[in-house]
Amino acid sequence: MINYFSSDFKLGILGGGQLGKMLLYETRKFDIHTIVMDPSEEAPCKISANTFIKGDLMDYDTVLDFGRKVDLVTFEIESVNVQALKQLEKEGIKVFPSSSTLEKISDKVIQKQFYLDNKISTAPFSAFNSRSELLKAFSEDQLSLPFVWKSATGGYDGRGVMIVKSQEDLEQIPQGKCLAEKLIPFKNELAVIVARNPSGQVISYPVVEMEFHPVANQVEYVICPARIEESTSVKARQLAEKVSDAFEHVGLLAVEMFLTQDDELVVNEVAPRPHNSGHYSIEASYTNQFEQHIRAILDLPLGDTESKVAGIMVNLSGEESYNGPPVYKNMEQILKMPGVTPHIYGKKETRPFRKMGHVTIVNKDILKARSIAEEVKNTLKVISEN
Amino acid sequence: MINYFSSDFKLGILGGGQLGKMLLYETRKFDIHTIVMDPSEEAPCKISANTFIKGDLMDYDTVLDFGRKVDLVTFEIESVNVQALKQLEKEGIKVFPSSSTLEKISDKVIQKQFYLDNKISTAPFSAFNSRSELLKAFSEDQLSLPFVWKSATGGYDGRGVMIVKSQEDLEQIPQGKCLAEKLIPFKNELAVIVARNPSGQVISYPVVEMEFHPVANQVEYVICPARIEESTSVKARQLAEKVSDAFEHVGLLAVEMFLTQDDELVVNEVAPRPHNSGHYSIEASYTNQFEQHIRAILDLPLGDTESKVAGIMVNLSGEESYNGPPVYKNMEQILKMPGVTPHIYGKKETRPFRKMGHVTIVNKDILKARSIAEEVKNTLKVISEN
Repeated sequence: MINYFSSDFKLGILGGGQLGKMLLYETRKFDIHTIVMDPSEEAPCKISANTFIKGDLMDYDTVLDFGRKVDLVTFEIESVNVQALKQLEKEGIKVFPSSSTLEKISDKVIQKQFYLDNKISTAPFSAFNSRSELLKAFSEDQLSLPFVWKSATGGYDGRGVMIVKSQEDLEQIPQGKCLAEKLIPFKNELAVIVARNPSGQVISYPVVEMEFHPVANQVEYVICPARIEESTSVKARQLAEKVSDAFEHVGLLAVEMFLTQDDELVVNEVAPRPHNSGHYSIEASYTNQFEQHIRAILDLPLGDTESKVAGIMVNLSGEESYNGPPVYKNMEQILKMPGVTPHIYGKKETRPFRKMGHVTIVNKDILKARSIAEEVKNTLKVISEN
Repeated sequence: MINYFSSDFKLGILGGGQLGKMLLYETRKFDIHTIVMDPSEEAPCKISANTFIKGDLMDYDTVLDFGRKVDLVTFEIESVNVQALKQLEKEGIKVFPSSSTLEKISDKVIQKQFYLDNKISTAPFSAFNSRSELLKAFSEDQLSLPFVWKSATGGYDGRGVMIVKSQEDLEQIPQGKCLAEKLIPFKNELAVIVARNPSGQVISYPVVEMEFHPVANQVEYVICPARIEESTSVKARQLAEKVSDAFEHVGLLAVEMFLTQDDELVVNEVAPRPHNSGHYSIEASYTNQFEQHIRAILDLPLGDTESKVAGIMVNLSGEESYNGPPVYKNMEQILKMPGVTPHIYGKKETRPFRKMGHVTIVNKDILKARSIAEEVKNTLKVISEN
């Protein structure tokens, strides 16, 4: 067995944002040597990595050179040069998740087709190479309102997704390869995080429930455990594990699903990395998602995914009309509330809706957690004094 | 209120060992800018501090210069230059805990006298300026066997303390200022960690129980909650809070006590910083001791100290007869066990009995935690392959 701890082993992480930062909590805990690359010199990962390299994650040569410096490559963002990852794999450097998994996921059209090919329940859709192709299909009645427009690549934080209900909405559709998905009336948006290691050990986290901000299309509350039937929970976890096995995924896979009005589960999309819907796990779970991702990619035994206590996460997003160095208004008030832990990502500038941190509220009683979470949400604000 | 988060505020930490490293988990979580100083270039804190400075913590000018670079100074080790701290306080730089608290604690003779002056129950003792003074007192029947010899300054990790039972033991006593304490037959060794902020808010952690290695005088298991009567627990926490108030302590204070055969609580000694007996809190408590220390010194509201689940900590000490780069033998086996989290401090060399890390075992059932902890202890070993 390879000695990962306090040794010459080097783990490379592509991407130095908050997900990488939270992975580094775990590599510091285990004394695993890390090299992190990010295009920004102010990346949150700059501190806590053994070595930080500024570089373009989408550049073939940059990613190739980076990978050759380490023993194992992982990533905290999907926008990395896949061809470079393929080449690294050919050269015998481990890449987890694999380039092949990443390819299937990072283009949403390919991802959706993969679900169909693997008999994984997902909303019906049509794929288009361009905006004009989509508009032509609409004008020929092959596509009708309402529908969900999704960009094939590049969507994150609610971008690249739009509900198209009217002619005005149609005119807003950006250029580029995309898909139009049937709008499913759902009861709940759920997520299940699955961990899988190269030895094939698979384990899922309890189902979480996501409540969304109606306008910004960003998550307001992530609630664990989800307030659903036990039987639905079992099915959701099995579905997520099936998805992970189908992708032969190594590391963490966050599987986002809808629970329809008819109690059917439908896969929305996946992310092959630690995910916003799993941040609650730092305070609530026996093994947090970041430690779990490290265990999985190093082919170590996976840890217990159950919860010690109920957990609710609130995203901390920049308030509208504020740009500049962040000020966390009313932090002292929320620190008085029991079971409340803020996480500040260390971004140097706030912008409207920019993810600046999150706050997790844990409690033995989920109803108490929910009411404290609402108080936190209404109290703590990220503004700027510029 | 001062903006500590993502701002120009600078926190200085004297000492860069594992306690500092675990404080840095929390400063990274809150995006608090840190400058850490340690005499070793290989200090565990070198990564994760915004700035690391190599320097002698006992040197007046070095500590003074360091303190002038920051807004607030704290320390994770008692061996720092107290006069420099006093001068920094005069210059308006906050020092928590204060130089005055540190002075009362770092000399064990002064510490014991402080307990007497404040009517805090502690074992009877005599103080001696030198080894020869002690031997003279013994020869004049003013001191009888057995007794506990303690060095007035410089003791840590079980050093500077010796049970003197025989003539041979007497001959082993080192030079220097010391005290001889009555050997109290005790049922239990307990510890209570107290947090106190400048506003005077005080909160104690649940009582922990410590089981010691008979030879090395180091802790084997730290068990929370302690297996004692509820009434004893209440008294122990009150006693610890009284001690904290008496010292007017700011930050964390670990109060080590004996529970005598007659169910009396007797204070053994204190440490004005996060403490080995509080490491379990990272996985078990609503607010871990490191986050709590940060809250306390910044005069933020203190967090809930109660436990989510039972927690047992096992120290990970270098095995006898091994020196060199560490190898954590059987790590994979212990990672299979539920609720087990190893912490590797990142020291570059192992030595017999050197604290190389710890492992915390959490479980809803304390008996299960205890049996898993024993398995961990018997399985995971720190050796070297040199």
